[in-house]
Amino acid sequence: MRPAASEARRPIRAGSYRGQTGTLARGFVQANIVILPERHAADFLAFCQRNPKPCPLLAMGRPGDPSLPMLGNDIDMRTDVPAYRIVEHGRETAIVHDITSHWRDDLVSFALGCSFSFEEAIEEAGLGIRHNELGLVNPMYTTNIATTPAGPFKGPVVVTMRPFTPAGAIRAIQITSRFPQVHGAPIHFGDPAAIGIADLAKPEYGGDAVPIHAGEVPVFWACGVTSQQAVEQAALPFCITHKPASMLITDRRNAELSV
Amino acid sequence: MRPAASEARRPIRAGSYRGQTGTLARGFVQANIVILPERHAADFLAFCQRNPKPCPLLAMGRPGDPSLPMLGNDIDMRTDVPAYRIVEHGRETAIVHDITSHWRDDLVSFALGCSFSFEEAIEEAGLGIRHNELGLVNPMYTTNIATTPAGPFKGPVVVTMRPFTPAGAIRAIQITSRFPQVHGAPIHFGDPAAIGIADLAKPEYGGDAVPIHAGEVPVFWACGVTSQQAVEQAALPFCITHKPASMLITDRRNAELSV
Repeated sequence: MRPAASEARRPIRAGSYRGQTGTLARGFVQANIVILPERHAADFLAFCQRNPKPCPLLAMGRPGDPSLPMLGNDIDMRTDVPAYRIVEHGRETAIVHDITSHWRDDLVSFALGCSFSFEEAIEEAGLGIRHNELGLVNPMYTTNIATTPAGPFKGPVVVTMRPFTPAGAIRAIQITSRFPQVHGAPIHFGDPAAIGIADLAKPEYGGDAVPIHAGEVPVFWACGVTSQQAVEQAALPFCITHKPASMLITDRRNAELSV
Repeated sequence: MRPAASEARRPIRAGSYRGQTGTLARGFVQANIVILPERHAADFLAFCQRNPKPCPLLAMGRPGDPSLPMLGNDIDMRTDVPAYRIVEHGRETAIVHDITSHWRDDLVSFALGCSFSFEEAIEEAGLGIRHNELGLVNPMYTTNIATTPAGPFKGPVVVTMRPFTPAGAIRAIQITSRFPQVHGAPIHFGDPAAIGIADLAKPEYGGDAVPIHAGEVPVFWACGVTSQQAVEQAALPFCITHKPASMLITDRRNAELSV
């Protein structure tokens, strides 16, 4: 028996677990979180709709309502993420583990798909995910590919990178194509400069560089950090995101997302 | 209205069309043909089963029966291929356009999927197929990848190559993955030497070299010529194949093959 996602959320909700979620509740969907005032919600929804590969929307809450019943019966967005970033005028002003005191009647929650879901499917197919094998954080990079703007939200697509042999890359493309709600197929492979990445050895956003072996090619998937970048450059007076890698654990199973 | 496949077969059957079939009966499945004595049929069937990417079996006839009802109500394997190769002891001894005089009570027909089907799907997605754009024959190459043998049948996998940008290659992988009966997804992309191809400028089996533009990568699919190579090196006293690019036109539609 896999531990239920709600069991994994319990210590997070209690404030006793404040770390990364990648190894928790295997098999269950984890989500990127953006919480912002209702007056920006329609624009952000449009931004997700126009940029489905980096920003695949899993669920959207009602204004002032901290539940997300599409993703779990008892989810409380005020307490169920291990670490939140408070972002004011585009700058992170605090990392907190409970946003009950920050909650407002006009806040709308968005949950976006995360690559943990497709990484599980790749690993179950017998392919290794280099950063997981090495216990590292997924390398992330800003590209020169622009998102399609909506209202104040715009900016470059951020990608993650995983090295594979060509045959492994073909298999990974097949597998991730079945998961459009968690970034889907890669958007590029091979030459990093072709998408504006100058140096794979210098990942951004807290990711780690990973080795690429002889005969392997780097494969690039759109990343949910794109949404955080778009929100931050919009410089809204107030919004909340999750701390990267500390995700919302939902009750939906990764296998449910497969098309 | 597309011309029916049976209409396209009529001049072939009458002997008045003896050329390539790539531009005929668009939308209908075309097939590679191998015809051999019953005593080798079980081994050849096993060879196809063990090597489904280069040798995807669409239909197998009954001994001595020149019909293939799975692929068309009126198909006659003795007359419906524009050009046949008579192969004796592993050597081509004649090119003929009707095998009625060669037919025997012990001959079994095999029809294998052909890349024309997936090329149509790629083109309908808006991607160009370089050799089609240039009016050339698909470049083909012998690889260092071995087939899984069965009885006397063995040998290297032969591949076709089409250049794409990485984004185009990802889309082509998605599209061809839906067509496992016509070679399915590619088996390699990028460095030709990794699969034993020394020089892309020197294709084999009558294929033409095609230019690869800056920013493109060569993408390699398993090719039905693999089956002809396996049959020829087996050096059976007698067998018949089609002349490459002069295929059997069937009544099945390419879209039927999509999974």
